Amino acid sequence: MKKIAILGSTGSIGTQTLEVVRENKDIEVLGLAAGSNVELLEKQAREFHPRLIAVWTEEKAKELRARVRDTDMKVVSGMEGLIEVSTMSDVEILVTAIVGMIGIRPTVEAVRAGKNIALANKETLVTAGHIIMPLAEENHVSVLPVDSEHSAIFQSLRGNEAKAVNRILLTASGGPFRGKREEDLLNVRVEDALRHPNWSMGQKITIDSSTMVNKGLEVIEAKWLFGVDVDQVQVVVQPQSIIHSMVEYVDGAVMAQLGTPDMKLPIQYALYYPKRRYLPGERLDFWSLGRLDFEKPDMDTFYGLKLAYDAGRAGGTLPTVFNAANELAVKQFLNREIKYLEIIEIIEDCMKAHKNIKEPTLEQIFDTERATYERIESRR
Amino acid sequence: MKKIAILGSTGSIGTQTLEVVRENKDIEVLGLAAGSNVELLEKQAREFHPRLIAVWTEEKAKELRARVRDTDMKVVSGMEGLIEVSTMSDVEILVTAIVGMIGIRPTVEAVRAGKNIALANKETLVTAGHIIMPLAEENHVSVLPVDSEHSAIFQSLRGNEAKAVNRILLTASGGPFRGKREEDLLNVRVEDALRHPNWSMGQKITIDSSTMVNKGLEVIEAKWLFGVDVDQVQVVVQPQSIIHSMVEYVDGAVMAQLGTPDMKLPIQYALYYPKRRYLPGERLDFWSLGRLDFEKPDMDTFYGLKLAYDAGRAGGTLPTVFNAANELAVKQFLNREIKYLEIIEIIEDCMKAHKNIKEPTLEQIFDTERATYERIESRR
Repeated sequence: MKKIAILGSTGSIGTQTLEVVRENKDIEVLGLAAGSNVELLEKQAREFHPRLIAVWTEEKAKELRARVRDTDMKVVSGMEGLIEVSTMSDVEILVTAIVGMIGIRPTVEAVRAGKNIALANKETLVTAGHIIMPLAEENHVSVLPVDSEHSAIFQSLRGNEAKAVNRILLTASGGPFRGKREEDLLNVRVEDALRHPNWSMGQKITIDSSTMVNKGLEVIEAKWLFGVDVDQVQVVVQPQSIIHSMVEYVDGAVMAQLGTPDMKLPIQYALYYPKRRYLPGERLDFWSLGRLDFEKPDMDTFYGLKLAYDAGRAGGTLPTVFNAANELAVKQFLNREIKYLEIIEIIEDCMKAHKNIKEPTLEQIFDTERATYERIESRR
Repeated sequence: MKKIAILGSTGSIGTQTLEVVRENKDIEVLGLAAGSNVELLEKQAREFHPRLIAVWTEEKAKELRARVRDTDMKVVSGMEGLIEVSTMSDVEILVTAIVGMIGIRPTVEAVRAGKNIALANKETLVTAGHIIMPLAEENHVSVLPVDSEHSAIFQSLRGNEAKAVNRILLTASGGPFRGKREEDLLNVRVEDALRHPNWSMGQKITIDSSTMVNKGLEVIEAKWLFGVDVDQVQVVVQPQSIIHSMVEYVDGAVMAQLGTPDMKLPIQYALYYPKRRYLPGERLDFWSLGRLDFEKPDMDTFYGLKLAYDAGRAGGTLPTVFNAANELAVKQFLNREIKYLEIIEIIEDCMKAHKNIKEPTLEQIFDTERATYERIESRR
């Protein structure tokens, strides 16, 4: 039995992870953590019988305790609760499917406790890659990417030496606004931005896809996961989202992973790595696929991608500013408090105002997050 | 120093292998064998200083001996000469770039002598795969594919378990007559058939590409190289020849190798496997690539591909009939003795007339070749 715990079990990746568990009989779920959706969490707990479940507030924890009082499951809350789930003895793989910088501390503690990380939380490496990756190496822990692009790169690297890598070709769908110019995006509504052409995902990441900020975060993540410079990562727009990403080697060979848009593949791949397992679902049919297109990303219109390269190149606390500014700006956009293009304006403003700190500690990273939020709040 | 010998050094793959040797300083060529082009062979010998050189006829050998009498190179001839080159002590890798069933015996002897095989000779596995592959395993010898499709598959299999393979997706350009119907091919001239859209290759293989018989031979070869059923090999037409082939796994993931059409890549990959080396040359530029198309092959018009599946499925001596009939028919077409569509008619006629022998010996394979030639000659 493979023993896992999941942070963010009620979200998009979390629920799909549980689908993978359901389809395989040899994975045991020891811990589940969610934000506030106690109803779904209770349902999941009753199906998968974890020993430990966590929610964010103590209030919700009380509600959940009442709901599961007929079982012997322990309910915890807060950062302490998240860390308790992340470091449970017997857990081999921690799936970090929680959204936001809240995922960093539990991940650090899990790595220290020797857990392999199936990483779906982008913020962890974007803001603290310089802390996490050396720590993982020190603790002989694998950081296994769960999102489809990094999993594709990880699969394309298989069996090859790191020094044979020339470039990473990170594919992007281009989102719902591909081909548009800045002036076309002046009056984008929330509904427009939430209409992703290929993938069904959470709201925040769907907005990030539309601005290509998500791709920018992935560029920075790729830098840490695969030990390359951000300028070795080329973004290639591939609107059909069939090629999930590629690696170019020193001999000119390009290895690619292709597939249908199904997050269960990278999830299962991370859980069973280095083995592959049968996965039910639709297969690519090249006889009827027709065509694949390729484009250069438009970094003038999708200026957030350009800012991500700047942040990734500079390193230090600047990627934290990029990420935190985007997080709050997207929240404000979803709340209809700001206009679509203001998301990128806010990120740029925060980056320009920031005094970068090289090799920051976790404390400095969180201070930077806080300062960035405060700057944005003070705009209103 | 990596020590190699090359059979077919004056042909397309042979000369490109020597280009790879020229670009790398750690490969030593110990033996060269060619058919009859003594002029080029002499030039190659003077540049690469092999100890042993072979040509097919003793007459040509005499001519070559006279040409290189100022050196200490030994000149040999005939099948004995080919085998002497193939089994030279110190040779680690034999590149079998010779065309035709003439390559089988030297390959068998090289495997017995423990040489790894960089295989560019299609006929070896198509006709004697059931002999070569077990022999290679017995002698702990690697059979490394040199053509671009099988190398792509080999690269796409890297680091994965054989049992995780679901299908092999063998790509095909479709050749110069893609999209044509049988009636369009009635009056195809030699010049038309020699006009391949993407690859610059020898005459025989270019004709085979136009009929898709080449793809059929590759399907049968893939069966032996990768231990799958022919029906696990799906041919996908990819007219731009950018995707060189793919592997579909049980989890639905498809791994692909892409590249520019440069045979030096698979040649160098085979010579240095499992390492990759820098290779000068053009790189794929996805920003300007535009698009890739995919089609189902038209097995009515390109009926030779259908016949190859039949031959591969039946096994025994039938693939030898398929191959030998095609070989002679293409020769007759190139000599303008038969019409284009007769190539496939001749193959079908020979296959229909043949009484299949299961698990044939090498003798039975060569008898089948002879009998097939005789049947075709008797048609005139």
